[in-house]
Amino acid sequence: MTTEVGHHHSVSAKDLVSIDAHRADILDRIRPLPPTQLGITEAEGSVLAEDITASRPLPPFDNSAMDGYALIAADTAGAAKDAPVTLRVTGEVAAGDTGAYAVTPGTCLRITTGAKLPGGADAIVPVEETDGGIAQVAIRLAVEPGHAVRYSGGDAREGDVLLARGTRLGPMQIAVLASSGRARAEVFPRPRVAVFSTGDELTEPGQPLAPGKIWDSNSFMLAAAAREAGCLAFRHGPVPDDPREILPAIEHQLLRADLLITSGGVSMGGEHDVVKDTLSRLGTIQFRKVAMQPGMPQGFGTIGEDSTPIFTLPGNPVSAYVSFQIFVLTALGALQGQPDRQLPSVQATVTGPLRSPPGRRSYMRGVLNRADGTVAPLSGQGSHQVATLGRANALIVVPEWAVHMKEGDDVEVLCLP
Amino acid sequence: MTTEVGHHHSVSAKDLVSIDAHRADILDRIRPLPPTQLGITEAEGSVLAEDITASRPLPPFDNSAMDGYALIAADTAGAAKDAPVTLRVTGEVAAGDTGAYAVTPGTCLRITTGAKLPGGADAIVPVEETDGGIAQVAIRLAVEPGHAVRYSGGDAREGDVLLARGTRLGPMQIAVLASSGRARAEVFPRPRVAVFSTGDELTEPGQPLAPGKIWDSNSFMLAAAAREAGCLAFRHGPVPDDPREILPAIEHQLLRADLLITSGGVSMGGEHDVVKDTLSRLGTIQFRKVAMQPGMPQGFGTIGEDSTPIFTLPGNPVSAYVSFQIFVLTALGALQGQPDRQLPSVQATVTGPLRSPPGRRSYMRGVLNRADGTVAPLSGQGSHQVATLGRANALIVVPEWAVHMKEGDDVEVLCLP
Repeated sequence: MTTEVGHHHSVSAKDLVSIDAHRADILDRIRPLPPTQLGITEAEGSVLAEDITASRPLPPFDNSAMDGYALIAADTAGAAKDAPVTLRVTGEVAAGDTGAYAVTPGTCLRITTGAKLPGGADAIVPVEETDGGIAQVAIRLAVEPGHAVRYSGGDAREGDVLLARGTRLGPMQIAVLASSGRARAEVFPRPRVAVFSTGDELTEPGQPLAPGKIWDSNSFMLAAAAREAGCLAFRHGPVPDDPREILPAIEHQLLRADLLITSGGVSMGGEHDVVKDTLSRLGTIQFRKVAMQPGMPQGFGTIGEDSTPIFTLPGNPVSAYVSFQIFVLTALGALQGQPDRQLPSVQATVTGPLRSPPGRRSYMRGVLNRADGTVAPLSGQGSHQVATLGRANALIVVPEWAVHMKEGDDVEVLCLP
Repeated sequence: MTTEVGHHHSVSAKDLVSIDAHRADILDRIRPLPPTQLGITEAEGSVLAEDITASRPLPPFDNSAMDGYALIAADTAGAAKDAPVTLRVTGEVAAGDTGAYAVTPGTCLRITTGAKLPGGADAIVPVEETDGGIAQVAIRLAVEPGHAVRYSGGDAREGDVLLARGTRLGPMQIAVLASSGRARAEVFPRPRVAVFSTGDELTEPGQPLAPGKIWDSNSFMLAAAAREAGCLAFRHGPVPDDPREILPAIEHQLLRADLLITSGGVSMGGEHDVVKDTLSRLGTIQFRKVAMQPGMPQGFGTIGEDSTPIFTLPGNPVSAYVSFQIFVLTALGALQGQPDRQLPSVQATVTGPLRSPPGRRSYMRGVLNRADGTVAPLSGQGSHQVATLGRANALIVVPEWAVHMKEGDDVEVLCLP
């Protein structure tokens, strides 16, 4: 497999900012969003801004782990398959039954999973170990006190921290929240992200294409990536390279966005960098070359009254996508109080050669096979080659000090969502 | 670390259906949803029901890979840092410019990244390899024809399949779709999932808790899990164990749901299995014991006029969660034409001992450390122990034939989303 990389021209490593330094500068300028109280369903995907403690023990009361009979363990002494012990059944207690029940020596109660342990009872014999009797029951198993009982507090004690501040609320954490009786929680909400593509060459998909034009894809892609990262995202269709169009579009979105992303219009020189010029009027944005491939030209800063963070990403789709996963993802984490958010990384064995420019960290599209721990570089690694994106599930990391990797080398791989 | 497992009582392996057989039976009864045309943003997270082919070559025209000068490569012969070649600059062509431009021997045009290659030009010299001149330019690099040119069709040729039917539309695939000019696509839409919790013991979170009651968590958790799996999900607050309440709730949701999930009310015997009895009036549901831990009691079938699939999951939160990831996820994939959808799995080294019932596959909550390839079992593995869920990021698989695993053993691990 041959792997094409970009053209490398007179970019000296010493002119470049490291990825880590750029990421640190981004984190320096981002503050978490103001926490807010959200209902449990609305809070999905948000990050806790408070510790969730158990207001009561979990489970809140001693209860049965199985369907069976609640009884006094001592009454089952000597019971066996061929020597059952018979007890009188005095009634039945079901899950959710709030009545007061009790067993006395020689008696038992039918009980369902989750039902409150009756007074006097200290064990459950599962129905499978009995004849299932209604008025009386033959018990075929001798049990110890506590058998098949879930004790109050066995999962968590009152006051235990169930979920720590900084935890993202996925389905499992939502279950913990609900189990502890919380209908609302104080969270860093999902960031609202506004995405723009700029460039005179961009045409809306579905519209006919004039010569010299291409269809806009970055704004759709970046909005989708932001949603995939748990944000509320909205795109603003292609904006021409004209300050009179760019300025009002950005100012309008500033009113509702927690973070802005543009792509295109920020190459490293020339009077066509309208985005760069226009944004510089609204705030402080640093444009720099970062020691990476793709994604070298990066812009980040804050604009407007609320110092809203803004990324100006390169216009090539692959560069924009990689920049999102390497930098914007970290910024979105920081807005939610999780400044260490990054793509998960694994080690894998690369199945073909890779070339990378000296002094830059490369992120090459690849197909990771988790089962056998290999990663195959895709052909077509040019940063405009969007077709390859549709087949990648991973980014292969080639470190700054490497210019070549060969088949069989161990590499770091970032898993794409 | 001690690891608690459930109580094992007289469950003979021969009474159990294997996980694979249960999954096969589910797939047997699920047909993909009718494909529908969706706009590109609405199609996010859906699965393609058509191949997407390139309606034009990608890129659609020869264009510049860099900011620089478009020229005739032969004119740069002999150019070097200390021996520049000077060419006359006749103008400028920017990305999106639809005008007709051309170069002739001895002349060049300034050009920006993405701009159409002018007639007569066959190479680009990047601005970094020049003095950046406006009227004339000193070229310091000799280039071959094709240098820094992206040729039409270099990414994909007209008619190439860019995305195959069955591909899920994540951000990268959305980019491919948009790049090829598609504003809409034929997709298997996101399934609409209705989730119910049933049980007299269930109280809505935020409400006071009477003795013997617990707060409902399953319906929130399962709806969140369905959304995380790319579905539109709605929950129906706790339903009491009463056919007069269950029946209308289910029938109402049948009108809008593509799949239903209940949890609770399906233990293996007793007159309290109201859900089981009620649902049996609406369709064909098989209730069986599956050779797994947690999650042994499973119900699956179809109900109503449209043979809508329904899962009746066990009521313990951990059992319900595991059942979702093992069975419901596969069913949701099948509704979208992806019957092989399962959690991604990796191999890891377990850091502590595990016990598992014979003849059943166990899924134990654990914390996977991707960096060092270890997985730590969490304490509190009882299937009612919801607090552990908040800390897990993986399920450790203990196969049917194993009853014990020790520190240092290699295990299969399912990565939770």
